[in-house]
Amino acid sequence: MQKEQSFIPPRLELFSDAVFAIIITIMVLELRPPTGHYFADLLAVFPIFLSYVLSFMYLLIYWNNHHHLLRAMRTPTPGIMWANAHLLFWLSLIPFATAWLGESHGAFAPVLLYGFMLLAAAFAYSILQAHIVAQHEEDSQVTRDFKFENDFKGKASIALYVLAIGAAFVSPIISYIIFALVAVMWLVPRHLVR
Amino acid sequence: MQKEQSFIPPRLELFSDAVFAIIITIMVLELRPPTGHYFADLLAVFPIFLSYVLSFMYLLIYWNNHHHLLRAMRTPTPGIMWANAHLLFWLSLIPFATAWLGESHGAFAPVLLYGFMLLAAAFAYSILQAHIVAQHEEDSQVTRDFKFENDFKGKASIALYVLAIGAAFVSPIISYIIFALVAVMWLVPRHLVR
Amino acid sequence: MQKEQSFIPPRLELFSDAVFAIIITIMVLELRPPTGHYFADLLAVFPIFLSYVLSFMYLLIYWNNHHHLLRAMRTPTPGIMWANAHLLFWLSLIPFATAWLGESHGAFAPVLLYGFMLLAAAFAYSILQAHIVAQHEEDSQVTRDFKFENDFKGKASIALYVLAIGAAFVSPIISYIIFALVAVMWLVPRHLVR
Amino acid sequence: MQKEQSFIPPRLELFSDAVFAIIITIMVLELRPPTGHYFADLLAVFPIFLSYVLSFMYLLIYWNNHHHLLRAMRTPTPGIMWANAHLLFWLSLIPFATAWLGESHGAFAPVLLYGFMLLAAAFAYSILQAHIVAQHEEDSQVTRDFKFENDFKGKASIALYVLAIGAAFVSPIISYIIFALVAVMWLVPRHLVR
Repeated sequence: MQKEQSFIPPRLELFSDAVFAIIITIMVLELRPPTGHYFADLLAVFPIFLSYVLSFMYLLIYWNNHHHLLRAMRTPTPGIMWANAHLLFWLSLIPFATAWLGESHGAFAPVLLYGFMLLAAAFAYSILQAHIVAQHEEDSQVTRDFKFENDFKGKASIALYVLAIGAAFVSPIISYIIFALVAVMWLVPRHLVR
Repeated sequence: MQKEQSFIPPRLELFSDAVFAIIITIMVLELRPPTGHYFADLLAVFPIFLSYVLSFMYLLIYWNNHHHLLRAMRTPTPGIMWANAHLLFWLSLIPFATAWLGESHGAFAPVLLYGFMLLAAAFAYSILQAHIVAQHEEDSQVTRDFKFENDFKGKASIALYVLAIGAAFVSPIISYIIFALVAVMWLVPRHLVR
Repeated sequence: MQKEQSFIPPRLELFSDAVFAIIITIMVLELRPPTGHYFADLLAVFPIFLSYVLSFMYLLIYWNNHHHLLRAMRTPTPGIMWANAHLLFWLSLIPFATAWLGESHGAFAPVLLYGFMLLAAAFAYSILQAHIVAQHEEDSQVTRDFKFENDFKGKASIALYVLAIGAAFVSPIISYIIFALVAVMWLVPRHLVR
Repeated sequence: MQKEQSFIPPRLELFSDAVFAIIITIMVLELRPPTGHYFADLLAVFPIFLSYVLSFMYLLIYWNNHHHLLRAMRTPTPGIMWANAHLLFWLSLIPFATAWLGESHGAFAPVLLYGFMLLAAAFAYSILQAHIVAQHEEDSQVTRDFKFENDFKGKASIALYVLAIGAAFVSPIISYIIFALVAVMWLVPRHLVR
């Protein structure tokens, strides 16, 4: 194996990027063109459009964070490979949860499922993050970045997802608002991105 | 993080390319095979085919320009990341707008929606361009290229989209012709591409 | 633009590869699971499966040749960009033609359309090849490779597609056999691949 | 062709990764949102979900092994190209087999087809592996790794697939359990991954 390191493509990133890109674009397939030809007919697909916007934001945020996190990776280990696959698994179910949410007319179960999917993805992400942080010294910049600053948003998100799931028992609208707030919280830029 | 710079994949480009590729190919899924087995049956899918050709051209032009623009990027910033995501969002709605257009038999609303999508994408592109040009000196080659030469086509497109939207109130056919003209205008080669 | 050349991803290849990969895999979506749960039910999807195998082979052959051809490219020009886009356009219609072919029960029109698509793709490929060969000296290895050896298969394919289209007027079965023969002809390995 | 080697993207890996990513994500499209809005409605899609989980694991395992295997490749040859295409062909049929399995309510034929697809993919993989191992000396590390250690899992898988196919004649449930066991066997980490 005298092939040089630089020649080998970082397939973990390439593969993850492809999966991210496909998950995002596959959701558009749910956005079926209305059967009528008037603007009023667009109203019927508006809730599906809103759920698309929400999931598009979430997936872009995940991609962005994933991008940042994998730059801190020293070397890919089996643990990281499978933690990454686990994250992609939950993210790959987002189109399904989004489609159900979009057609749900504010029903209870789809909101709960959506919240659960976000929660599972957030846990999967934190496992991947723990694997990568473990490759760095306790007092390194990476550890400080991810353990403290970033972790605040991560932990706040998990708390808010739980809150949104609880709120769904009262009114699904509150859950929607919390989902949107978490997305907006992540959109506030951090100091380093790539 | 002593990993070398050259080892890190330019994930912004990779991810964008994957999204572009999927958006383009997803549109083909709308082109359902006709139910009959005669050439006459193909006529039924011909308007959908035409709208596919139009959107294929637009997306290739965007990819081409995006390719060129991102080569001028000095370093990816959060601003650029999100301006890029914003552009991809509008472009990801093109298959939806195309599908409605293809089934519309020249109806008014789908033409207007299509024009609006193109307009939104054009604005999103100009925001991304502004972020990237801002990384260069006022009198640099990049600034001159994008601010003047390129900007002519960009501004002309926006004006023509507005015209096409207005024309739809008179006759959707005129809008179609304008959409096609804008695409042809962009196909005229510029002096530098990659 | 003092970014180094090696840092810039060869997006033409990346984008084309993504489009190739999506076109190929999108065809599987046509292969719907049978409604029954017996092996006899699989028979109903067998013609669709056969048309999938045929198109899978064609697209892999195109990808393989495209791969080889683009390695001979000196620098991407607008002409090459658009010749490549033109090729991808015709290839992107293969899933549509394949789906119609698979459902056609040997009808005449779908076979003719399929042959026409292959013919159009072959012409588009030869245009792209001409653009790339033009970047090399008349007496270079590349020119010799592509102008003579490779061109034999290219020209033979075009002749055979025309023959297959003609044969469809007699019996679509003959066309199928010719399509398969062309694919097999290309599968015979050439001396250099990557 | 004085372009440097390092500039040329390893398109075999890129293309394979894209195909892997699309095959995996395309399966989610089978996971249609339930028509009702209650948790009870989710039960109807639960078997489809389970078959998705199984195939997701298999495809990730294949991707992981493929990743590892292609790192041992010295130079891409036509033989490797086509052995790889052959593997991708069988893997591309996994979504079809998965969809049939998910809707089968434990019927016999879909389980058998699924087992056959796994068997065919396993054979295709071993052909690709043989091509790559043949590029190394008889007593090299690569040969030892793939011929002995890795080959154990490979051969065990093939034996278990055959067993699962046989077991389907008795009870499809046993086949499901064997399929899951093979996946779990592969998830046990090996010492080197990337």
